Amino acid sequence: MAGREGLTHEELEEGGVLALDFGKLQKVAACGQDLLPVAVQDDESGEVLIVAYANAEALDYTRREGVAAFWSTSRNELWVKGATSGDVLELVEIRVNCEQNSLLYRVRPKGQGACHTKDAAGRSRAGCYYRRLTGDGLIAV
Amino acid sequence: MAGREGLTHEELEEGGVLALDFGKLQKVAACGQDLLPVAVQDDESGEVLIVAYANAEALDYTRREGVAAFWSTSRNELWVKGATSGDVLELVEIRVNCEQNSLLYRVRPKGQGACHTKDAAGRSRAGCYYRRLTGDGLIAV
Repeated sequence: MAGREGLTHEELEEGGVLALDFGKLQKVAACGQDLLPVAVQDDESGEVLIVAYANAEALDYTRREGVAAFWSTSRNELWVKGATSGDVLELVEIRVNCEQNSLLYRVRPKGQGACHTKDAAGRSRAGCYYRRLTGDGLIAV
Repeated sequence: MAGREGLTHEELEEGGVLALDFGKLQKVAACGQDLLPVAVQDDESGEVLIVAYANAEALDYTRREGVAAFWSTSRNELWVKGATSGDVLELVEIRVNCEQNSLLYRVRPKGQGACHTKDAAGRSRAGCYYRRLTGDGLIAV
């Protein structure tokens, strides 16, 4: 597996080189918030769109406004998905796991897609898991 | 939302009281490992089964052995799902997200189910997200 440091955003997000950020959850914790992981699933297609993080404020916003909201652990602020891009995820329901330490948002995408990356046609990808891990790298699904 | 302290495992896992563990990701980070979140999805039904955590060792095991493995952040050891229960999750494929900081395991359950809890008939539940968040608590889906 390659180091991430020498890669551009383009290479990281569009390329075939595996360069996982195993430091992610240490960085998430370092933002100082009390957070849960949230898996987000398209209620109709069943596709897993993104995994993000929520604190009590993000969960309250999501329930109150009916759109998927998270806590941005890089900007350390409430992140209402689609607030700037228009790619809003309308909430269908929230599921809670057995141990009550993770969430599943089931949603209906109202824009182009849930991913911030774009496909060859310039449209937001439906979800973030558009590459499969192979023997020695990543290939587009 | 209730405090978790006064609740039994039974109440937490089977009950209707919402008592989310927002301290989860702080505890995950405190185990000292470099970890990514992993969403696990049934390749056939599309059901999101669990969200867990993987370090490089767990990912390597999963790829090498073809069964879902994680890092147990409470026991701080490799956790091969189903090793004791028999509820093995056979790996179909691994997807990587845009920013390469989370994983999606697509799996084929080979035992009863992926959850450690059991339904009224005494069978392991297929997945962990068997309750929906309502106005004032949780109801079984």
